[in-house]
This record gives sequence, structure tokens and C-alpha cells, in this order.
Amino acid sequence: MNYSLILFILGSLLKVEGCFLLLPVLVDLFYKENVISSYLLVAGVCLILGGLASHKRPERGKLYPRDGLIIVALGWIVLSVFGALPFVMTGDIPNYVDALFETISGFTTTGASILSDVEALTHASLFWRSFTHWVGGMGVFVFVMAVLPMLGGSTMNLMKAESPGPSVDKLVPHVKDTASILYGLYLGMTVLEVIFLMLGGMTMFEALTTSFGTVGTGGFGVYNSSMGGFSPYLQNVVTVFMILSGINYAFYFCLISGKLLTAIRMEEVRTYLLVILVAIVAICIDSRHVFQGFFDMLGHVSFQVASIITTTGFSTTDFDLWPQFSKTILVILMFVGACAGSTGGGIKISRLMILFKSMRKELSLIVHPREIKKIRIDDRSVTHEVVRSTNVFMVIYFAILFISVLLIGVDEKDFTTNFTAVVATLNNIGPGLELVGPTQNFGFFSHFSKFVLMFDMLAGRLELFPMLILFMPSSWKKSK
Amino acid sequence: MNYSLILFILGSLLKVEGCFLLLPVLVDLFYKENVISSYLLVAGVCLILGGLASHKRPERGKLYPRDGLIIVALGWIVLSVFGALPFVMTGDIPNYVDALFETISGFTTTGASILSDVEALTHASLFWRSFTHWVGGMGVFVFVMAVLPMLGGSTMNLMKAESPGPSVDKLVPHVKDTASILYGLYLGMTVLEVIFLMLGGMTMFEALTTSFGTVGTGGFGVYNSSMGGFSPYLQNVVTVFMILSGINYAFYFCLISGKLLTAIRMEEVRTYLLVILVAIVAICIDSRHVFQGFFDMLGHVSFQVASIITTTGFSTTDFDLWPQFSKTILVILMFVGACAGSTGGGIKISRLMILFKSMRKELSLIVHPREIKKIRIDDRSVTHEVVRSTNVFMVIYFAILFISVLLIGVDEKDFTTNFTAVVATLNNIGPGLELVGPTQNFGFFSHFSKFVLMFDMLAGRLELFPMLILFMPSSWKKSK
Repeated sequence: MNYSLILFILGSLLKVEGCFLLLPVLVDLFYKENVISSYLLVAGVCLILGGLASHKRPERGKLYPRDGLIIVALGWIVLSVFGALPFVMTGDIPNYVDALFETISGFTTTGASILSDVEALTHASLFWRSFTHWVGGMGVFVFVMAVLPMLGGSTMNLMKAESPGPSVDKLVPHVKDTASILYGLYLGMTVLEVIFLMLGGMTMFEALTTSFGTVGTGGFGVYNSSMGGFSPYLQNVVTVFMILSGINYAFYFCLISGKLLTAIRMEEVRTYLLVILVAIVAICIDSRHVFQGFFDMLGHVSFQVASIITTTGFSTTDFDLWPQFSKTILVILMFVGACAGSTGGGIKISRLMILFKSMRKELSLIVHPREIKKIRIDDRSVTHEVVRSTNVFMVIYFAILFISVLLIGVDEKDFTTNFTAVVATLNNIGPGLELVGPTQNFGFFSHFSKFVLMFDMLAGRLELFPMLILFMPSSWKKSK
Repeated sequence: MNYSLILFILGSLLKVEGCFLLLPVLVDLFYKENVISSYLLVAGVCLILGGLASHKRPERGKLYPRDGLIIVALGWIVLSVFGALPFVMTGDIPNYVDALFETISGFTTTGASILSDVEALTHASLFWRSFTHWVGGMGVFVFVMAVLPMLGGSTMNLMKAESPGPSVDKLVPHVKDTASILYGLYLGMTVLEVIFLMLGGMTMFEALTTSFGTVGTGGFGVYNSSMGGFSPYLQNVVTVFMILSGINYAFYFCLISGKLLTAIRMEEVRTYLLVILVAIVAICIDSRHVFQGFFDMLGHVSFQVASIITTTGFSTTDFDLWPQFSKTILVILMFVGACAGSTGGGIKISRLMILFKSMRKELSLIVHPREIKKIRIDDRSVTHEVVRSTNVFMVIYFAILFISVLLIGVDEKDFTTNFTAVVATLNNIGPGLELVGPTQNFGFFSHFSKFVLMFDMLAGRLELFPMLILFMPSSWKKSK
């Protein structure tokens, strides 16, 4: 374990957070709600601590996969611990555990809230709360890599540890360039949505916060009714951008670099769009009696399907009131999740494709024992390594799921609440069913349960391994 | 696909069922409830059809793994289709779909019932209903192999297809001898329990039906209160025999053949007993306020833990009224299941051990990339093959689970009911929570949902693969 390198990278991270915390200061300059000092103070602390930690450039050392995982896990925890401070200091969320829950929910793009009245927050805090989605969506280390001079090629292991999906491809040979391209596309998407939303009548503030929540697939809104109060046009814009944000960013990179055919042929993207289509049709048929007219139905259902499969978690209506079959589809979509390499959470379409294909292969091996078959995605064969780690991912996933449901059972809430609360946090969605349904919040859970759910949010966003490695004693031995 | 061999084996199976159906005839000779003709008629039909199908001994042909799976799947369906007839003809369960559900629930040792008033049944039907547990527990093909002259060594693939667990060992070199030893031990266990129960004051009829339900890990009772009406002594006897029935029969074979040390060293058995102990202690602590006194608590809790982990499904009390944490433990135990090579269902302890060990191995590989480690159980290394098929098992398992929950969602019951109904049938337990709780029954489901749950029960008992292979078109091509 290379401690001086860890310190340097965590320091750089804190400096970046310090800069980010100046944005709410700008917001408060406009809205004048007297919270400038709180945000300035925390920003200052982050900049000073970060500067101290990163002032000495460590010798160039190798960054092993293990180190990448540990740094990312620690980094996200540090980020949240400091990011929660302004909520307490402004008085917007007086309890620190609640503030930490809200911040982790923000950075992990979960969007599960402990607030019953969002509208009571200051604009600066609402902005910061939504901005954490934007930072966490594409990944804070990816950002650090894009803007700061780092330590060469070994940072690929940082990117691997933070990026979602069973395997990570560099778009271009250099990690720094890949990170820049990703953030460029991400920024472009955000700006585009802001423009479309402002054309529909949103204020700059509403458009920004909504866009952060959409492209980061987060789900924090600035109104108690989430997206319910906005016009159908605005809701449809959000629907489209949610779906776009669930697509692998490699798709957009292919598009802009002219490889149209490669983009269209991406099996994961096509599967993702097909799943969305099938889910919308099935729910429309099942719950048609709930809505007034065809377009009302189509709007609400496609919004909700997009919101859940991309793990955003916005809502336009209380889907806990929909019929059971429709709700079960939504619960299953919570597990499915978006494409690998997108900002969305969940198990990911490509993982499910690998699992489904290996299942089909195994069954066909029983029938034709001498057959030699390889699992292929996009005409490339999936390595044995990736299949194995996908399987281990699933085992760990369900282990964490069951243990979490058991642990928060001590709060004595009903099974559906506990189950969907864990599913909604582990998959970084936000709302579940019953007591954590779209019109409810997570405030009633005990501190103990909140910590369990915070762990689940981080484990879900970082794809399990970093958080587990962090708790293995053997990870902490000094590397030779 | 060797059709003449399939026909011969299915014929033999029907002849065996015909003989079994003569047992309820004996029961009715004693209780005189005028249902002799129904049971005699169905027995006759089975014997005649079975004789016709198996009168021509097929040429000696190879039995491929695929053939074993298909024959077992078809065999269990045929067995249930005919086994359900007497319920309809005696008028005990007038609706054939309900009768089929009850019979499949019996043979698969699930114990989920559609009856709201069990006590209204004739004694012959109650006996037959419980006897199906006994037949299904150790496996009907294992029985056929033990008593009928069969087709030599190739029948190992039949045994593999029917026996639970990730890998099947022959206890002795010959399959026929292994089958005889297994049924010998099974019969011995049954007789022992009958004696202990009759010593506690049960009638012969009660003792027999209860023992069938216990050693087969089925769970059908003959009273509406399940085991609730019996004395603490009788309940404790059942607790002990449930726990014993969840142990790998290889353990007992080691015991009687003097290999005491091998038996005690069995990792799966020790893990199984440890899980039971931990679950009992945890539930006792959580739900102590529910009971009157220490022994009342210990009795009920250990009974329920044993009943659920062995997937029996008897109950002495309505555990749906226990606190949520305790209920969640029970739901998790529903997934865990008993030992491989026992009569219990569920995922099986040994599978979970393999999964847990491969997860630990994978994590440790990240920290120490150059380490070479093998997964070992009982000091033997687990083959790569077994690990892979265990992983595929889990994927198929959760796929069936989610699709089933979705499909029975059309009945518009609550999520907890749907989820635990599928979990309770797929793991061959019986009762779930809410509408399918221990004092409730499955009668309210639509025919469609009942067929889904019947599929789940068969898939669970036969460990998924046979039922899936059955639906693959390529399985049905004639073998060269």
C-alpha cells in the first residue's frame, strides 16, 4: 500500500471539492439567503487540508488494482464527509447523520432523501445537493484525472475502480484524454438539457438543478412534487434525457468520431432500448385505467420507466398506487439498471447479457456436450475472466442485498419497505415502495439503518468491490 | 433422444405409482369412508398403462445426461398428473387444477396447500397427500432404481438429475446399491420417528402422516393447526427429526459404516448446524416478548427455524406475527435450505459454501494478484466445473424467481405475498408471509398463477435444469 500516493490523490480530491463548494456561494450571491459564510468556510477548509495533503508530490510509484479500489472507496467517503458539512452549518439539515445520508445519496446519484420538505431549503443548499449528482454521475476521479496533472498511465486503475460496468475500455490511448472526452460529452449533454428546459419555461436555477439530476441519473428535485408540477413538455424533455443518460458514453464517442455503424451495432444499447420499450408497453396495458387518456398515460409511464431503469428516481406521479403487476415490473427494472459506461446504476444491461448468454451456453452444453461455444458481445468474445468476475459480482450483490434487508429489519418496518429501500439504495435509484415510495422519504429510519443504507449506496455506485476491499485487513499491508 | 427407453422408464414409474396407490386403499379399509373405488380405479389405470408402456424391454442404449434430465422432468409431471386424479374422484378436491397443485406440492415436498379446511378430507386422501411427500423426498427414480431391475450403469444420469446438490456421489460402486442404501436409511429414519411419535400419544395414522411430512421435508399436516395442537414433546420430536432430515445422507452412511471421523469432519453438516444455532439465538433475542417463558420460546423458535431451513414448512404458531427482524431471518433461511444429498430443498448449504469461498478467493486475488488458491471443501478441491455450474444455477434461480414474481403479479396481490409465495414454492417450503402465511393457503391464486407456482415447485425440487431442458426444442432431436 502506497500511503504517500493515497494522501496525494485524496488531497487533490479535496482541492477539487473546495472549488466545487464555491458554486453554491455564487448561487447565494444571487438569492441572498445568508449562507455564504458556511459554504465559504467549508470550501476554505477543503482547500487548505487538500493543499497540505497534496503539497508533496510523491515519488512515481505503481498503482496496483487494489490501490485503485481503496483510493476510490476512501475518496468517496472523504468527499461525502466534507460535502455534508454545509448542510449542517446552514441549518438546512441540522443532524449530521442525516446530512451525510443526503450527501452520499447525492454523490452516489441515488436520490434517496431524508427530507420531507425539500422546498424549505436555501437555494444554495438545493444547488449543492443537485450538483453532487453531477459530480458523482460521471465520477469525481474521472474529473480529477481530466483536469489535474496526475501520475501517468497507472491511473487507469483509478478509472477502472470508479467506472461502472463489467469491463472498462479506454476510448483513446491516454487515460487523461479519455477522461476529458467523457467530461466533454457529459458537459455537452448537460448544456443541451438546460437549453431545452429553459425553452419550456424553467428558470435557470430549475433547469440547472433538474439537468444535474437527469444527466447524473441522480433524482433529487427542488420541489416536493419532484417533477410532478412541471408541464408535459418539460417532463418529456426529462424523459428523453434520462434515457440518453443511461446509454454507454462510448456510443456517443462513436457518434461524434463518425463511427456510426459501430454505434448502431452496440448490442447493449439496443437491448437497453428494447427493454425500455417492452416495459412501457406492458405497464401501459396493465395500468391503463389509472390514467386520463392515451397521452397522459404514455407520458407518465415512459417517464417512470426511464426514471427507474436509468436509476434516476424522479417521479411525476405516485407509482406506488399503480397495479401490482406494473409495480413488479418497476421493481425488476430497479435491478436491471442502465448500460455499462453510463452514469446510471443497477446491475447493468451488459452484465445481465453476459449472465444470460452464459446460462444459455451452459444449458446448450448439456444438450450438446461436445459443442464448443464462446460468449460473444458486439462480435468480440467475452473473456473467461470477465464472466467469472461477473458471477462473483452477482454473488456479492445478493449477499449485500440480503444482509442489508436483514439489518434494517431491526427497525420493524414491513418487508416491502425494507426490501425496496435496500434495492433502491444499492442500485442508486432513490424511491422504493410503501414507506419509501415516491411521495415518502427515508427520514424515519434509525441511525443504524441509515448507515447500512449509506454503505449500500456507496457499494452500489462503486460496484461493490472497493467497499469490500476497504474492510479486508490484508489490503492494508504496505506493498513491497 | 432414446424414445423407447423413455417410454420404458416412464412405464416402470407408473407401475410403481399404481402400487403406491394401493396404500390409501388399505387406509380406507380401516376408516370406511367409501373412497376405495376411486383409489383402486386410478391404481388400476396406472398399472395397466405402465405395463403397456414398459412391456417391451428396449435395447440397451446409452443414457446421456440430457436424457436423464428429460426423463426425470417428464416422470415427475406424469407422476403428478395421475397422482392428482383420486383427489378429484373422491370429491376431496373437486377442481383438477387445485388437485394437481396439491399433488405437485406433495411430490416436490413443498407443502403449500390450496385447502382452507384440511380436516374435511377423507383419511385415505390425507394419507395419500402425506405419502406423496415420502415418495418425493428421497426421489421416485431413486426408488425405482432400488426396487426394479434397470439398465445398468447408465442410470447414474437419472440419479444425478433427481438428487439435490451441486454434485452427486455414489456411496458404493453400484447405482442400484446406492439407491437401496439411501432408501434403507430413509425407511429407518421414518420408522424411528413413528415410534417416538406414538410413544408421545399419537395414533398410528397421525404418526405415519407426520413422519412422512418430516423425513420428506414436506410439511402437509392432517390438522388445520398444522403441528400447533400437539404436545411440546411431540413438537420437539418433530424438530429433531426435521433437523436430522436436512443432513446429507452420506453422513448417516459414514456413521453406519464406522467412518465416524469422516462424518464429524463434514464441513457442510457443521455449517448447517451452526446456521441453525445462530438463527435460533438471533430470533429468540429479537422476539422474546412474544412468548410465555423460556421453554415456550425455545420450543417454538427452534421448531420454526428447523421447519424453514429444512424447507419442511410445518408450523406450531403463526410466525407472520413475529417481529420483522425475525421474519427476515426466516425469509433468508428460506433461500439457504438444507444440505445437499438430503431430502430438503432451497439453494443448499454446500452451494452457498462454494459461492462464499469463490467470492473470498476473488477478493483476495485482487489484493494478492499472484496468489494461487483453490476452493476446497472437506479437504477436496472443488472442480472448476462445479463452481461454474453453481454460478449458472444461481443465475437461473434468480431469473426464475423474478419472472415468477412478475407473472403472479397479474393477480394484484401485495408484493410481500407474491415474493414469499414464489420463494416458498421455488424452495419447496410451503408457507410464506402475508396472504400465504402459515395460517393461510394458496387457494386464492388464479389458475394462471397456480401453474406458475407449480412450475416453480418442480423446478425447485429438480434443481432447475430438468425443467428448462424440457422446454428447449433442441433437446428433442433423436440421438444418433
